[in-house]
Amino acid sequence: MSYYFAKTVDYTFDEAIEKATAEMKEVGFGILTEIDVKETLKKKIDVDFRKYKILGACNPNFAHKALSVEDKIGVLLPCNVIVQELEDGKVEVAIMNPMEAMSVVKNENLESIASEVNGLLKAALEKI
Amino acid sequence: MSYYFAKTVDYTFDEAIEKATAEMKEVGFGILTEIDVKETLKKKIDVDFRKYKILGACNPNFAHKALSVEDKIGVLLPCNVIVQELEDGKVEVAIMNPMEAMSVVKNENLESIASEVNGLLKAALEKI
Repeated sequence: MSYYFAKTVDYTFDEAIEKATAEMKEVGFGILTEIDVKETLKKKIDVDFRKYKILGACNPNFAHKALSVEDKIGVLLPCNVIVQELEDGKVEVAIMNPMEAMSVVKNENLESIASEVNGLLKAALEKI
Repeated sequence: MSYYFAKTVDYTFDEAIEKATAEMKEVGFGILTEIDVKETLKKKIDVDFRKYKILGACNPNFAHKALSVEDKIGVLLPCNVIVQELEDGKVEVAIMNPMEAMSVVKNENLESIASEVNGLLKAALEKI
C-alpha cells in the first residue's frame, strides 16, 4: 500500500483545486492551509517549478479524536491534498493515505480512526 | 525511533512559538502555515481544547530536492513543529522526525535528504 491515493483528472489546475476543495468538504474536511509550492520556490530560491499546491485538510471531529489518543499526532496533521501539473500538461490530485502515514505512530487506538478517515478520503478522491 | 523529537521548555506558550520560529529559521526553515488547533476545534465543533498550534516549516532547498526525487512527497510536507500546553501548565515543543515519517515512502534517494534534515531539526530543537 502506498502513502498516498492519486488520480489524474481532466480539469485544469485551478479547477482541480476547486473540485478537490469541494469534495473534501463533502466528507467533512475543510482546507485550513494552502502552500503554493511553485510560488514559494520561485520567491525563496529562484527556482522554476511546475504548478504544485499543497492543501492542508482537516476534519475537526477526527482531528479531535486523534489528538485525544495521541497527543503528538499534530506533527502528521493536517491531511494533505496535493494538486500538481504533470509533464504532459495533465493534472494529478493525490491525498495522503492516513493508514500508511500514521503507521509510524504505532498506536492501536489511532488505527481505527485512520481507517475511518481512509474510507472518507478514498470516497472523496473518487468523486474528484 | 519515534516519529517526533520533543522537549519540554520553560517558556510560556507564546514565547515557545516565537523561539521555535526563530530557531527553525536559523536552520533555514521558514514557517509557511499555522493552525491554531484550540481555536479551530472551538469554532468548528465547539470543543474546549488546550493551547496547541501546528506550525508548518519548510526549507525551500530541501523541499525542492525532495520533490525532485519523489513527486508526491508534498503529501508529507511541510515539516511540522507543534507547540502545546501540557496538563501541568508546562509547554512542549515537538518536531516531526523526517527519517521516520518519510520511511513510509520507501525511496532511497529521499533517505539521504531526510537524514540531512533530521540533523538540522535536532539541532534546532536543542536550542529552543
